Order: sequence, then structure tokens, then C-alpha cells
Amino acid sequence: MYVIVIYDVESKKCNKLHKYLKRKLNWTQNSIFEGDITKAERVIIKNDLKKLINPKEDSVIIYDLPDKRWINREILGKERNPHQNII
Amino acid sequence: MYVIVIYDVESKKCNKLHKYLKRKLNWTQNSIFEGDITKAERVIIKNDLKKLINPKEDSVIIYDLPDKRWINREILGKERNPHQNII
Repeated sequence: MYVIVIYDVESKKCNKLHKYLKRKLNWTQNSIFEGDITKAERVIIKNDLKKLINPKEDSVIIYDLPDKRWINREILGKERNPHQNII
Repeated sequence: MYVIVIYDVESKKCNKLHKYLKRKLNWTQNSIFEGDITKAERVIIKNDLKKLINPKEDSVIIYDLPDKRWINREILGKERNPHQNII
């Protein structure tokens, strides 16, 4: 399965989430990560994220897609991570 | 087609983009919008966004999906827009 993870957390927690997600997924732009993972890996990521965030303040969105071939990504303006622009 | 639009722009431009996208798509969370649109509408949105942003400073990501049935969205933590939580 393919996931897109977007986080919106307190600024002091950004670095922690970025570091964590960088080990698990590919960084797309700012607070957006993507990756091809197994269902088991998704469970681990979800559980870890729940521990890392404060549910009253922070939020993380996980989009699940059956396959990365079904999505196309287009970036307008500045590219923050041009090396991973092609899915 | 179904699109997910995520913007990262200078704070003074956030309101302008939010207002624009709210007229065209459904607001999901913070700087994330989604919606079922035609290819012609996508062209208009892309062109309008290109005019609204500064390509040297801002960035907008557009994910295209053939159909919203292919994606599942899960929100961890705080829901910013609970009324539109179901795709």
C-alpha cells in the first residue's frame, strides 16, 4: 500500500516528527511524507505517531492508497526536496 | 478526477489561498483541500494558484487521483474540520 502522511504539530515537535518519519517514509515537502509500505508497517507508524503527538493540540492525516501508480504529484512553485520529486 | 491540494506559503498569503480554495474544493485540515473536479476545473485551479503564489517562496502540491473511492483518510489527534471528515 502507498501512504501520504501530513502532520500539523506544535513547532517544537516538528523536528521529532520529521526525524521519525524520515526513517520510515520518503520526505516530499515540509510536513509531507510518502511511501510504499506494508500493512504491518502502517500499524507501527500509526501507533508511533499516536505516541509522538498530543491529541489535543496536534494532528496527523494519513491517506491510504492501494498503489502509488494511481496518483500523480505536481508541485507548483518552490520545490523543497527536488531529488524525490518523481514518485 | 479527485485532487488533494496542500499549500505551504508565506503566512500573509495563507488567508488568500484559503479563501480561494474554499470556493473550489472542500477544506480538510489547515492547508489541505480536497475535491472531485473536472479536468477543466483542475486547469483553472492550477492557473489561479500559479498567479496567487510567489514561485520563489511558496509551494503548492497537487495530488491527482482517478477516483476518490481509491483513497482512505485517517486523522490522528485533533480534527480541525470534523464536518468534512468523510470523503
